[in-house]
Amino acid sequence: MKMLTELDVSDHKEVVEVGDVKIGGEDLAIMAGPCAVESREQLLTAADHVAKEGGQILRGGAFKPRTSPYSFQGLGEEGLEYLAEARERTGLKIVTELLYSDDIELVNSYTDILQIGSRNMQNYGLLKKLGEVDTPVMLKRGYAATIKEWLMAAEYVISHGNDNVILCERGIRTFETATRNTLDLNGIALIKDKLNIPVIIDPSHGTGQRNLVSPMAKAGISAGADGIMVEMHPNPEEALCDGQQSLTLDDFSQLVDELNRVAQAVDKRLAV
Amino acid sequence: MKMLTELDVSDHKEVVEVGDVKIGGEDLAIMAGPCAVESREQLLTAADHVAKEGGQILRGGAFKPRTSPYSFQGLGEEGLEYLAEARERTGLKIVTELLYSDDIELVNSYTDILQIGSRNMQNYGLLKKLGEVDTPVMLKRGYAATIKEWLMAAEYVISHGNDNVILCERGIRTFETATRNTLDLNGIALIKDKLNIPVIIDPSHGTGQRNLVSPMAKAGISAGADGIMVEMHPNPEEALCDGQQSLTLDDFSQLVDELNRVAQAVDKRLAV
Amino acid sequence: MKMLTELDVSDHKEVVEVGDVKIGGEDLAIMAGPCAVESREQLLTAADHVAKEGGQILRGGAFKPRTSPYSFQGLGEEGLEYLAEARERTGLKIVTELLYSDDIELVNSYTDILQIGSRNMQNYGLLKKLGEVDTPVMLKRGYAATIKEWLMAAEYVISHGNDNVILCERGIRTFETATRNTLDLNGIALIKDKLNIPVIIDPSHGTGQRNLVSPMAKAGISAGADGIMVEMHPNPEEALCDGQQSLTLDDFSQLVDELNRVAQAVDKRLAV
Amino acid sequence: MKMLTELDVSDHKEVVEVGDVKIGGEDLAIMAGPCAVESREQLLTAADHVAKEGGQILRGGAFKPRTSPYSFQGLGEEGLEYLAEARERTGLKIVTELLYSDDIELVNSYTDILQIGSRNMQNYGLLKKLGEVDTPVMLKRGYAATIKEWLMAAEYVISHGNDNVILCERGIRTFETATRNTLDLNGIALIKDKLNIPVIIDPSHGTGQRNLVSPMAKAGISAGADGIMVEMHPNPEEALCDGQQSLTLDDFSQLVDELNRVAQAVDKRLAV
Repeated sequence: MKMLTELDVSDHKEVVEVGDVKIGGEDLAIMAGPCAVESREQLLTAADHVAKEGGQILRGGAFKPRTSPYSFQGLGEEGLEYLAEARERTGLKIVTELLYSDDIELVNSYTDILQIGSRNMQNYGLLKKLGEVDTPVMLKRGYAATIKEWLMAAEYVISHGNDNVILCERGIRTFETATRNTLDLNGIALIKDKLNIPVIIDPSHGTGQRNLVSPMAKAGISAGADGIMVEMHPNPEEALCDGQQSLTLDDFSQLVDELNRVAQAVDKRLAV
Repeated sequence: MKMLTELDVSDHKEVVEVGDVKIGGEDLAIMAGPCAVESREQLLTAADHVAKEGGQILRGGAFKPRTSPYSFQGLGEEGLEYLAEARERTGLKIVTELLYSDDIELVNSYTDILQIGSRNMQNYGLLKKLGEVDTPVMLKRGYAATIKEWLMAAEYVISHGNDNVILCERGIRTFETATRNTLDLNGIALIKDKLNIPVIIDPSHGTGQRNLVSPMAKAGISAGADGIMVEMHPNPEEALCDGQQSLTLDDFSQLVDELNRVAQAVDKRLAV
Repeated sequence: MKMLTELDVSDHKEVVEVGDVKIGGEDLAIMAGPCAVESREQLLTAADHVAKEGGQILRGGAFKPRTSPYSFQGLGEEGLEYLAEARERTGLKIVTELLYSDDIELVNSYTDILQIGSRNMQNYGLLKKLGEVDTPVMLKRGYAATIKEWLMAAEYVISHGNDNVILCERGIRTFETATRNTLDLNGIALIKDKLNIPVIIDPSHGTGQRNLVSPMAKAGISAGADGIMVEMHPNPEEALCDGQQSLTLDDFSQLVDELNRVAQAVDKRLAV
Repeated sequence: MKMLTELDVSDHKEVVEVGDVKIGGEDLAIMAGPCAVESREQLLTAADHVAKEGGQILRGGAFKPRTSPYSFQGLGEEGLEYLAEARERTGLKIVTELLYSDDIELVNSYTDILQIGSRNMQNYGLLKKLGEVDTPVMLKRGYAATIKEWLMAAEYVISHGNDNVILCERGIRTFETATRNTLDLNGIALIKDKLNIPVIIDPSHGTGQRNLVSPMAKAGISAGADGIMVEMHPNPEEALCDGQQSLTLDDFSQLVDELNRVAQAVDKRLAV
């Protein structure tokens, strides 16, 4: 078997299909929504706006991995139900995080893309179970994982039977503290040069600051990314999670316009 | 509730008891054995030597977290049975890694200490389940976790009901490539200054080189650690895992002698 | 006095003029040439090509900072003379590294921009002397300097009398080894959001790989950079320094075309 | 010529003599004093205490490298004069930082050891000039330099004619922010295993916290260091520089006692 990490030939897909939405190739995917699903109203407002601006995928966390055991842990299945309602209403696809391997059936029954977060990138028990479904998996890079380790984690999923893998760069941990993380766009350029597996950029977690989301989204696309995942909240000041890095609805509208221009300049098309 | 991470008062234990072996306080714990349990003979030879030299705890992995899905993944339950046999024969306690949350009952039925590895330090599903048993937990620091995140992970276990938590420093990831990891002894000194929760040092993973294990074990004890965990193999050249950092039996004998002298110089006693 | 590092108001210039070439604002600066000046022929060939493709500034090192004392240290003043000849012939401006404070008069008598390398970013003796000339200074970020320290180093130059300061991001040192450095485009976006001092991106040192130079040059411009500095060699295989990251002449031609499209998409103009 | 960095044979000295004080071998060197020389009284009080407790070398900065151009930059030559007076009075040797290559004659005419700070480790102009004197040089590790680069910097000094080189580990820059730097004791153990060039540990800069100086000094000696350099101030609360990491006089007395015990346990002798 050829491994991804030999970096020359491999069995990964260059385009992963999520229903009629293609991730990879010439298409640019836009995933947006709140960090955490907080209420029905908050989510539907966000979903309507993503759909209106031409995004294809709605994000929102129902199970939240929090550094402190005393922080808000998410709405759980109630959150999943709101996501499904938003899909029904808007036609958007859904991406949400699978946190615990025990929840794989539950989460898989609601979502279109299973998101694996940074802290779980080397949770091998979880990765092996992902091989047993055929739902697309978006595998975020561990915040201190090398590119090789990241590809090896993808290999765990693929070698256990599921080749619908999308990578997501969300920033690595360095000595710099002026930004939340350091987005490693070099890594995107390297992977696209060697492999062409789909890669999404998350400039919200990657910078931690609302003002930096738009320039870094554009930079990510220029480096070769196949789409963006951004946090957007109807009222960032009241967000229960990551408000300082969430775009407002207006910020998001402007980002889509700007991204459209950059996408054309690098031969990608944004389906608006 | 007072949290560990307030770094002034907390509900952690200063001494964790593993049967009649005390971890913390004036006692110095010695944990040694092979990286992976490879065979009955290999394990019993190692166990006999640990016991002979005065160690109290036998280490050995039955389930191995490997970066590549194609590397040796451990003997599984067969490995646990050899560990139990070695305990019966030598009187040593056992520490072994719990890798998958589904295996908690199985592993817990064999081991005296549940080891959580670096890659699982923020696997919150696993941490919560550890709160439901009262077996001592040895929580290795994530290779890119801050000290605060490490203590927060301990807080997950304690706040869910199990206050028998032992920390283990095993090196962090830095720009330096001449050693496998960079042991952060500053972190040990800081934690012992503020909290006095038991901390073990693992100079095998922390350095990746056999020759550096002994000086760094002594350094760790001088910085305040309550014990060491080292890899030792009857025949390191043939080890299936981490041979280059495994001590030989003779190396281990010499290490215990040297450690005894340093322990006395910092008012610790090594139970030989 | 307001300091750069207060990150709200400061005395820096938003556009630095190098003769009739403007660095900053709507203009995009292209600096290219070999890592080291190796011979008259090599340099003039490179210079002709940079001019032909519409670049404005020729780079080339006459004094090379090398990790090993036994590596090629540069042609010294002979190299400066070739640079001056190339300027005469092509009309390009020159940027070259000032390595030793004793050489400031010599190098300043030849060059249009004084480049300060990564290793000298906190060489305060050198920074103070730069305050005594009014030649533009391009200050590369130390490979492990925080953004704040980088701005403080710029403040050394400005507060000693020279406000013609241009910053250059050339990658920072992280745990990732698959690329030579990690380009911190977050830092560019942050500085442009807060200050708008001119910032150049160096994707050659920032990635260490020829294939990644073009995507990362485009990414840097999208993140807000005011120009690029790239290594280009008539025959990279025979380069005495950094051949693996040097573009060929053809690569450079293609890069300029691609950059032109991205520049327009972010409202910059490339003077071709 | 064999290079240090071949890590097997080299021309370095295993013991560097500073007058009758030996650095390296079985002897343990104690260097202590204030971060910056602030006044005659402050320095003489510190010097008397270092001598009384059996230290051999007095530290104190006359020229201070400061991140901000607006911070206290040192007393300059006045500071050097106070150091010379303290030497006369106590018999201690002196170590002080050489910051600018222009000052080498001046500083060399006063000091017994020329200290090169972390920010200047790759200031090759300065390193080359150090080859032209035979005064011992203490070369601090760059805060983001690899061990190999550090040895290469030593090689610059040695290959230019001065083999009296002492290394000093003062902590590296990592993602951890709970301590000022991360002391890399692995590096000390590695260098002593391969080369046995003298290495000093600086736990003051290495931790940034007074309470951690003593455990990390002991840890450094256990890892193989040949001595310590610590900051000590008669009144840390009023220090112009690094007060939070300076020991009081009483702290220092206690440190010497504790160090004595650990030194014996690793076959070093502290000349009290």
